[in-house]
Amino acid sequence: MLENVDLEKSVDKKEYRAKISELGPRIGELQRRAKEEKIPIIIVFEGWEASGKGTQINKLLLCLDPRGYNFHLTDKITEDEMYRPYMWRFWTKTPEKGRIAIFNRSWYHRVLDERVEKAVPEKIWTSAYDEFNSFEKQLCDDGAVVIKFFLHIAEKEQEKRFKKLEGNPATSWKVTKEDWKQNRRYDKYLDAVEDMLTKTSTPYSPWNIIESHDARFATLKIFTTIKDAIGKRLNSTGASKNLQQIELAPVPNSILDKVDNSLSLDQEEYEEILKKRQKELWECEFRAYGKRLPVIILFEGWDAAGKGGNIKRLVQAMDPRGYDVNPIAAPSDTEKLHHYLWRFWNKVPKAGHIAIFDRTWYGRVMVERVEGFCSENEWKRAYTEINEMEKELVNYGAVIVKFWINIDKDEQLRRFKARQDNPGKTWKITDEDWRNREKWDLYKTAVDEMIFRTGTNYAPWTIVEANCKFYARIKTISTVIKEIRKKL
Amino acid sequence: MLENVDLEKSVDKKEYRAKISELGPRIGELQRRAKEEKIPIIIVFEGWEASGKGTQINKLLLCLDPRGYNFHLTDKITEDEMYRPYMWRFWTKTPEKGRIAIFNRSWYHRVLDERVEKAVPEKIWTSAYDEFNSFEKQLCDDGAVVIKFFLHIAEKEQEKRFKKLEGNPATSWKVTKEDWKQNRRYDKYLDAVEDMLTKTSTPYSPWNIIESHDARFATLKIFTTIKDAIGKRLNSTGASKNLQQIELAPVPNSILDKVDNSLSLDQEEYEEILKKRQKELWECEFRAYGKRLPVIILFEGWDAAGKGGNIKRLVQAMDPRGYDVNPIAAPSDTEKLHHYLWRFWNKVPKAGHIAIFDRTWYGRVMVERVEGFCSENEWKRAYTEINEMEKELVNYGAVIVKFWINIDKDEQLRRFKARQDNPGKTWKITDEDWRNREKWDLYKTAVDEMIFRTGTNYAPWTIVEANCKFYARIKTISTVIKEIRKKL
Repeated sequence: MLENVDLEKSVDKKEYRAKISELGPRIGELQRRAKEEKIPIIIVFEGWEASGKGTQINKLLLCLDPRGYNFHLTDKITEDEMYRPYMWRFWTKTPEKGRIAIFNRSWYHRVLDERVEKAVPEKIWTSAYDEFNSFEKQLCDDGAVVIKFFLHIAEKEQEKRFKKLEGNPATSWKVTKEDWKQNRRYDKYLDAVEDMLTKTSTPYSPWNIIESHDARFATLKIFTTIKDAIGKRLNSTGASKNLQQIELAPVPNSILDKVDNSLSLDQEEYEEILKKRQKELWECEFRAYGKRLPVIILFEGWDAAGKGGNIKRLVQAMDPRGYDVNPIAAPSDTEKLHHYLWRFWNKVPKAGHIAIFDRTWYGRVMVERVEGFCSENEWKRAYTEINEMEKELVNYGAVIVKFWINIDKDEQLRRFKARQDNPGKTWKITDEDWRNREKWDLYKTAVDEMIFRTGTNYAPWTIVEANCKFYARIKTISTVIKEIRKKL
Repeated sequence: MLENVDLEKSVDKKEYRAKISELGPRIGELQRRAKEEKIPIIIVFEGWEASGKGTQINKLLLCLDPRGYNFHLTDKITEDEMYRPYMWRFWTKTPEKGRIAIFNRSWYHRVLDERVEKAVPEKIWTSAYDEFNSFEKQLCDDGAVVIKFFLHIAEKEQEKRFKKLEGNPATSWKVTKEDWKQNRRYDKYLDAVEDMLTKTSTPYSPWNIIESHDARFATLKIFTTIKDAIGKRLNSTGASKNLQQIELAPVPNSILDKVDNSLSLDQEEYEEILKKRQKELWECEFRAYGKRLPVIILFEGWDAAGKGGNIKRLVQAMDPRGYDVNPIAAPSDTEKLHHYLWRFWNKVPKAGHIAIFDRTWYGRVMVERVEGFCSENEWKRAYTEINEMEKELVNYGAVIVKFWINIDKDEQLRRFKARQDNPGKTWKITDEDWRNREKWDLYKTAVDEMIFRTGTNYAPWTIVEANCKFYARIKTISTVIKEIRKKL
């Protein structure tokens, strides 16, 4: 593929000056318009060592308002990143709507250097392609522009550049052993590069190969590509979202209809078992900490189903150093400036820690769907997006336990009324609860569809029969213990 | 002081059970009310090793809704924390309004262990007392409740507990060399503890000494203290803010009136000097990085004074790895749930990095004051709060460069009109700009007062005469170079 690229293309100074004096201000203007239209832009620079990435980035930055971009050099890994899934460090760096994130090296590090240097097993880097494609697709579907450059130079040219840098005392430090290693293994890297270009050039985020022997030619091609990509996106605002209606296979049957809500446990038995289980969970927590196992526990359920009470019994005997409880409310205004999964990526637990979510990313396919807070395509797309995210978390080694806390409609009414009649509990019931209750059937359809589409073998749902609180609490804690032990 | 504490106080089981069964639910209820009233609560547990901090915290957590608290064990320092001012890790952990943050060990580590173990020079831990008091005062003034416990046991009792733990194979690992070291140096620690209690028991956040030989007695005292403290705060909502009008010394004269706006530079000269300065700044950036010097550059100024253009010239030749530009808009809803300085603490640069702020924490005493977004006492208090923060940053080693970019009223009008008449620049001018212009005199008073009150010897203001853009740009870049070199 790269063999046939004509690397000798060049541009003379005069032509360059004429063109750049138009392109530069044009890109500045497009940055401003993208800001107004709240379009997030991601620009990735990959390429050979000494291909001129730094120089090209600096030229680009000169055209931009520095208040509107963030620059990321992601070659070194921090302590925080080491104990998180690979894509965590990139998800958390995705730009706010209207801002630009520029990456010098990127997630592709994994399928280039880490692959060639055998820093990760083959299984890891081969599955990374899917992660990258879904990452970029999710962002583009949400309205982002992702522009990827690969700066290409020939083996001989790279050697020549290294020697030139080494010959000058002021720049000789720039050439490292690793650089020479890349030159010696040029062919191996080339295989990796071609594989990457093939597997991750997608309609939504294609690779742009930049012939980089002539720096002026490279600059003009980079600038033109950026101008065209942002321009295209501006002319089709929102179009990507609404173009085509997503069609999904029908939901075969109701899962909630089959739940046996009569399951119960008496108080005495409950208290006895609870004590035992809490002790077991405490041990699990310590072992999970020792083995650096990340654990993610999700709670969804009907209003008044007892999510809070379940969570309380769960953490009661746990060591507070080991867990965090994340109550999820409506997204904040900052969170709204990002992909809806961004705020959850930010809350991925460190390896060895337990993150408990009271309501979760499933809000997208429940409340946001039912209340019309997102478009039909958005919530339909979310099933895949969520499955992809959970898959990545599981690949990274996490235990995911997903609970649907279920009560029937009569039981909810009993609890609402009991709360209203008890002065110590009236705060627990709001007008919104009553409004939600009126939409019971709409929610039921949404829940059935959610459980059907996101009940995967790697992250299955556990439906908790919760008309009897005692039974429910024992079931949740027992399930958590079982799932953690499975992985230990 | 601690000598006279009667450590033998105790409570029998029956009395304990009767009291705890009332106190526990009461604390849960107070947590809920504090959430409704959006009161942030900070609870600090300090005390001797083996005094029972962990046990007492666990008992407290049992009464709380786990969705409403965060627990922090802050004995180990992370990489991120190592390269930030000491209080950064605590500021960033202050709770949202309505939430509870519980600290097992805290900022007081510095004046206890670090002092006794001589881990930091005397100068550092002695100045820490002021930092702690101002930290707590700032939070309390903003409506927070800060509750501090010191769990006290005698030297002999500690020895007995260590031996008991060591005697049991299941718990012997809990006693470390450091623990025994504390016991051997009990008197030295005691001096540090007494010093701490004396210097940081303040009206807004007093220490509570907990006699901890008897765990039941300790629990009841802790619970009662928490109940009283939250109860008191609930009964005086907001009172702390409005109690007394703050009186400040008058501003002696206008500083802006004396600015010589006629200073100028011609374009040719400008371009020549700028190139030279940019190269010098690039060198400064690299040297600052090498020496891990943190640099904070603030831009405030009139609308259309040219802040953006100044920042652009500043970063133009800089390495993008070394700086971040933070444009500061109105606070987000999450930011509004914290002390107004919280969001700036979150943006303190890592040692070796440069943080540039386009508008800053000074918004409090300018736009928030003029537009009435905060109370009079709040902006009056802010001068001290800001000075305290900047002092901490300087103590930590940071260079702070503060610019007021100044133009006169006629020049602003010229620029507004020029922007309106130029189709490529109309976006730069909004109705809000015109509205702000009408309040020129109010802003001028605020700016004069700000420069007077916050122009300290450790973080002075530089007023930039900016009617001539060329002159202004050279002055800002030259000032930054000068200030960085001073510290290098």
